[in-house]
Amino acid sequence: MMAVGVSVPRVDGPAKVSGTAQYTADIELPGLLYARVLRSPYPHARVLRVDSSRAEHLPGVVALTRDDLHDVHPYYGSLYRDQPIVAVDKVRHVGDVVAAVAAEERDVAEEALDLIEVDYEPLPAVFDPLEAMRPDAPLVHESPPDPASHFHAPGGFRYQGGNVLTVFHVAQGDVAAGFRDADEVFDDTYTCPVIQHGHIEPHAAIAYWEASGKLVIYTASQNPSVVRDQLAEMFHLPAALVRLVVPFVGGGYGAKVHPRLEPLVACLARKAARPVQLVLTREEVFYTAVRHAAVVKIRTGVKRDGTLVARTVETVYDKGAYASTGPFTTKNGGTVSGGPYRIPHQDLTAYCVYTNKPPACPFRGFGVPQVSWAYEQQMDVIARRLGLDPVELRLKNLLREGDAFVTDEPVSSFGLDRCVEQVAAAIGWDGPRAIPTAVPAVVRGKGVACAMKTTMTPSNSAASVQLHADGSAVLLTSSVEIGQGARTSLAQVVAEVLGIPVEWVVVSAPDTDVTPYDQSTNSSRTAFSMGHAAQQAAGQIRARLLELAARSLEARPDDLDLADGAAYVRGAPEQRRTIRQLFQEHFGLPVGNLFGSYDFQTSGGVDPVTGKGKSSAFFFLAACAAEVEVDTETGKVRVVNIATAVDAGKALNPRQCDLQNEGSMLMGLGSALFEELVFDNGQPVNGTFLDYMLPSMEDYPRQFRSLLVETPHPDGPFGAKGMGESAITAVAPAIANAVANALGGARVADMPIRPDRVLDAIRRHQESQA
Amino acid sequence: MMAVGVSVPRVDGPAKVSGTAQYTADIELPGLLYARVLRSPYPHARVLRVDSSRAEHLPGVVALTRDDLHDVHPYYGSLYRDQPIVAVDKVRHVGDVVAAVAAEERDVAEEALDLIEVDYEPLPAVFDPLEAMRPDAPLVHESPPDPASHFHAPGGFRYQGGNVLTVFHVAQGDVAAGFRDADEVFDDTYTCPVIQHGHIEPHAAIAYWEASGKLVIYTASQNPSVVRDQLAEMFHLPAALVRLVVPFVGGGYGAKVHPRLEPLVACLARKAARPVQLVLTREEVFYTAVRHAAVVKIRTGVKRDGTLVARTVETVYDKGAYASTGPFTTKNGGTVSGGPYRIPHQDLTAYCVYTNKPPACPFRGFGVPQVSWAYEQQMDVIARRLGLDPVELRLKNLLREGDAFVTDEPVSSFGLDRCVEQVAAAIGWDGPRAIPTAVPAVVRGKGVACAMKTTMTPSNSAASVQLHADGSAVLLTSSVEIGQGARTSLAQVVAEVLGIPVEWVVVSAPDTDVTPYDQSTNSSRTAFSMGHAAQQAAGQIRARLLELAARSLEARPDDLDLADGAAYVRGAPEQRRTIRQLFQEHFGLPVGNLFGSYDFQTSGGVDPVTGKGKSSAFFFLAACAAEVEVDTETGKVRVVNIATAVDAGKALNPRQCDLQNEGSMLMGLGSALFEELVFDNGQPVNGTFLDYMLPSMEDYPRQFRSLLVETPHPDGPFGAKGMGESAITAVAPAIANAVANALGGARVADMPIRPDRVLDAIRRHQESQA
Repeated sequence: MMAVGVSVPRVDGPAKVSGTAQYTADIELPGLLYARVLRSPYPHARVLRVDSSRAEHLPGVVALTRDDLHDVHPYYGSLYRDQPIVAVDKVRHVGDVVAAVAAEERDVAEEALDLIEVDYEPLPAVFDPLEAMRPDAPLVHESPPDPASHFHAPGGFRYQGGNVLTVFHVAQGDVAAGFRDADEVFDDTYTCPVIQHGHIEPHAAIAYWEASGKLVIYTASQNPSVVRDQLAEMFHLPAALVRLVVPFVGGGYGAKVHPRLEPLVACLARKAARPVQLVLTREEVFYTAVRHAAVVKIRTGVKRDGTLVARTVETVYDKGAYASTGPFTTKNGGTVSGGPYRIPHQDLTAYCVYTNKPPACPFRGFGVPQVSWAYEQQMDVIARRLGLDPVELRLKNLLREGDAFVTDEPVSSFGLDRCVEQVAAAIGWDGPRAIPTAVPAVVRGKGVACAMKTTMTPSNSAASVQLHADGSAVLLTSSVEIGQGARTSLAQVVAEVLGIPVEWVVVSAPDTDVTPYDQSTNSSRTAFSMGHAAQQAAGQIRARLLELAARSLEARPDDLDLADGAAYVRGAPEQRRTIRQLFQEHFGLPVGNLFGSYDFQTSGGVDPVTGKGKSSAFFFLAACAAEVEVDTETGKVRVVNIATAVDAGKALNPRQCDLQNEGSMLMGLGSALFEELVFDNGQPVNGTFLDYMLPSMEDYPRQFRSLLVETPHPDGPFGAKGMGESAITAVAPAIANAVANALGGARVADMPIRPDRVLDAIRRHQESQA
Repeated sequence: MMAVGVSVPRVDGPAKVSGTAQYTADIELPGLLYARVLRSPYPHARVLRVDSSRAEHLPGVVALTRDDLHDVHPYYGSLYRDQPIVAVDKVRHVGDVVAAVAAEERDVAEEALDLIEVDYEPLPAVFDPLEAMRPDAPLVHESPPDPASHFHAPGGFRYQGGNVLTVFHVAQGDVAAGFRDADEVFDDTYTCPVIQHGHIEPHAAIAYWEASGKLVIYTASQNPSVVRDQLAEMFHLPAALVRLVVPFVGGGYGAKVHPRLEPLVACLARKAARPVQLVLTREEVFYTAVRHAAVVKIRTGVKRDGTLVARTVETVYDKGAYASTGPFTTKNGGTVSGGPYRIPHQDLTAYCVYTNKPPACPFRGFGVPQVSWAYEQQMDVIARRLGLDPVELRLKNLLREGDAFVTDEPVSSFGLDRCVEQVAAAIGWDGPRAIPTAVPAVVRGKGVACAMKTTMTPSNSAASVQLHADGSAVLLTSSVEIGQGARTSLAQVVAEVLGIPVEWVVVSAPDTDVTPYDQSTNSSRTAFSMGHAAQQAAGQIRARLLELAARSLEARPDDLDLADGAAYVRGAPEQRRTIRQLFQEHFGLPVGNLFGSYDFQTSGGVDPVTGKGKSSAFFFLAACAAEVEVDTETGKVRVVNIATAVDAGKALNPRQCDLQNEGSMLMGLGSALFEELVFDNGQPVNGTFLDYMLPSMEDYPRQFRSLLVETPHPDGPFGAKGMGESAITAVAPAIANAVANALGGARVADMPIRPDRVLDAIRRHQESQA
């Protein structure tokens, strides 16, 4: 292969490093107004009065309040329409959108915000999801949420009542019998806090209405097709009359998957009859989208030899104030909350629970890092109590190719054992022991973890390829380049199929007016799903070229191949026709296009009631091994050596895969050691990049190894599977296990592993040993 | 039919009438520089020295001279690369491009122009094409022009030597014998001056280079695909690395078909490493693109009963300084220079001759108005001398369905007789007589003319359609909306095929990164060629929908039809499936796209040596009848009543067809009575809209009728043929004939029919009668 499997440079690299890439905030349009948002100071309150009349007396100011929503569906949401464009009856979290203004100058917009008068009646609020599940808890939503229409796979979710939005459940075997059969039973609870994605580019959007009544939005979205459809529904327009254009995007990690600013700017632009731009401040980003906090109660029955026999997991995901795709996160995390293990008796439940906190949304790993944090720590607890090697314990119990998963589907393309073996080797795994260092207070330890994750299934991605007469080509796709390298790897797939240089392939930027449907750049589905669609679309052109060349060369298509912009007879490369020659012969002129297009539907999905079915078009598989230093006096943890291995199926661009692993590693490390959004009565107190503890380059491990396992998947382009979210699922528990091993078993069950918690764990461990 | 044949409102109308449409000149980009062009004051001179160093000392100024063309092909042109980006060795017309500058402020650019030092050595110049054909004439180009590469249909043109670029010739029968057989022979010469298109928007373009090395151009071009290919060749890039985006365009009429500003701004932007915008002044537009002046010598042999038996025509087209597509114009005009008549013996020759005037280029009618001006006036001369009715004379000799044309091809879809009959009836044709009025000096007369024209053949147009799950759709096409209504009529075709409302179809703006190949929005080929491609592309989706519906409804596809976004059983419309339901059933989710794409090649073309072959994918057919008032004291002519009829095949949008007829009428009227670009030693002296006499609303006839004849063409979408250029070919001679009839035979053979010429014709006529 000449284009696939090669670490070609990123096609979007030059624009980014030269500073010429245009992001949404860089776009200026004639007559552009700048928007600002008035946000709730209360975590929960009834909105008695909103009066923007004084603000609108400022020159050029347009204000949007609940009084402007009469001819639009005032609530939006991908699964449940529960999030108001601006507050209608209540505010449900600190930072909730109350009103918005647009003005010709940013400072005038700011001034206008101060002139909007709002009367609130504060209501009791609930912040802890376990408390929120109680019957007497304050209700975040007082009436059942409105199921969204047909646009998305509804997944059969059913509102449960109270603050419990949805529940996912799947089971196999006879759990009670399993536990009876176990020699040892382990009962633990692990927690994860609210964290934030930390994408460099804040949410940003520009909207305007064309004179024809068409809505145009430039937005930093990961999901132009679906957001387009939701806006069309909101404004009662055909999909073709809503256009979403996605400029360069500065990171997403899931935070930009669903409508964020688009409904608001669309309404403001409509009222102003001018283009309106809204770019959030960093503080506002923390109000807008976060990762689900979670509480995971896990109970496991084990044979003395380490064989897992029974497991129950109850996971409670903290949804925050609005549904977003929380029910999907809950399903996704719930499905794999038993881990990638053969356990004959399992009962897995996951709850999605409203609280008066900022809405949680998709985040790299989509519900899995929360449960792997639990089950992979418990694996080490089990190993330690049974005196087994944690790596051996995992390898003994891992699902293997063809084994039935809890959903009853057989797992396939399942190279997880090799991931575990390779990371263990990479850090010189030599057991769960504390390793002394030259500094008496500092001790080292190594830890290993692995995890599996499912991808959004069913889902749909369409691609269209045009071949020009000179052999260069364009791929039309709505996949968003969010930094993951999608444009490069998709160009490689098309180039490989057509036998042309990668530089000859242009991958379009998403523009729903011209790029076909894609069910979101999330769930690491682009390489697999869009890659498959692009491969098939280009394959149609390839077949046509071979057919034309066969006619011209009087050969059989099967005897021909494509390379360097020409078709040639295999074994006799001097018998060739350039693509231009083939166009000349076919069209009579050396001009025109050959077309290929393909809409790829991954089939399957689990039954919403039983949890059974095909949970995933492919599985994400990853392992991580880490070596840490723990300062037992300060509680500070430092990762010194870390390795991640993922099963990429086929690494389309190995360098990009390594960078994904590196990003996953650093993001997992940040969540393991530093990151948490801290609330005071619902008010985030560290929602800035000064206070929120993202890992910095000072925290970067002294050694990092990215390992790529390749177990080809039959549906992936050239065998490739998604892998951008694989490693993150294993990093935090590997670090936690390393810390525990350094400390002789003292363990921090609550993420992140803060110094105070380390010291506390040491103290408790010493007490328990005493 | 629900969408086709209906006068739906223009889809681009609201943006235009609200003033929100963005034209190229409206686009602002960060860091944009403004360009100005230094132009030659001489019609012909050697360029001894060009020194831009003083100009480049101004802050922020970048200059482009011949010294900057080392790594680019310095000449461009669609058929012959004879036009330099900036002057290399010579300047060849007043206004020729010598150098260019770009600066951050427009006035700095202007100042910089003054600082460029140029030394010229003036050379003898030639302005008259007949003089230019003489062996001793000054040579506009001293070496044979360089044939352009393979991008365009080269048409087999051969450089003839001297200032004669190419010659087209076609003949049939035995002309000498034909003239021997004739009872009367008519020998006349008619001339047409240089005129200008008068598009409201001047030429404008913006170029920038992406950091990746990709060239991006926003340009008011009628021909994005071909200009893209030519720029790719110029800069040695694959086509996919040149992107042409066409914003709204304010008229073209042929002037914007070929590269104009694009090579220059691309070079400036490359040198500046910033975006560069160039918008011409009106004066510069007159230097940039004009219509070919022409001299037509026509000799016709006729039987006493009016039967045409022999005709020779020699047409000399004044190419101006650069080839552009002059050889095509020459071929196109030459092919039909004998008129739409059965003439057994014909010999038609057309010369394309360089002069030191601004380069002529495509102009609505593409060489035909010049020859119809001749042959249709001579038809009336013949009728008058033989005492026949001019309408009867035409009807007697017209080609009819199936007759062989001079190219030997049979003519088809040929409703010209009905056009003639209908216009004659529309103005109450009652013979070639002078009609007195209440004012003694003012006399009226009526005149009729008809004409035929060929369209660019072979040629290529590709279209791609995406159907969304909600039934709305997008048509990807590089056809340019230049005011002709292309976006509306193409939307109608797609809507009709898919059974959806026209408002549900988005027609993309041209952007060669995403819209497929189209061999130019010219030759009125869009409705026919792109319409056919769109119909076929949508037809693929239609077939798929019917197939899916047939499966779902347990019916045969042939028994189904599409309407209102649903498939239904013909005769049982309650048995139906919406498009969304079909997507749901097909994809498992109500999302995705169905695709159709089609590349339509019109085959044929005439042999460059014999002139024989298939000259045209379809024929443009039109007639015009006019009634004029002539003031015999002042010579002023006023058109009071005029009717045009065209054979549209099928009027996709009757209102738009009427508007095309109206535009053709007014443009033909302007050329007949007012327009000419006047030169003084090669210097245009009236190149402004104050001095150049476009018709104004004061000149609008008191009565105008547009008549649409429909003779369906089998290859046209729903039978449609192009018709935007049909009527203009017949307007000017109809007016000339009306004037001659008002004056009892006094005739102005030189366009335009200026008052001085009218008075002169009256005087000469009176002298000849005396």
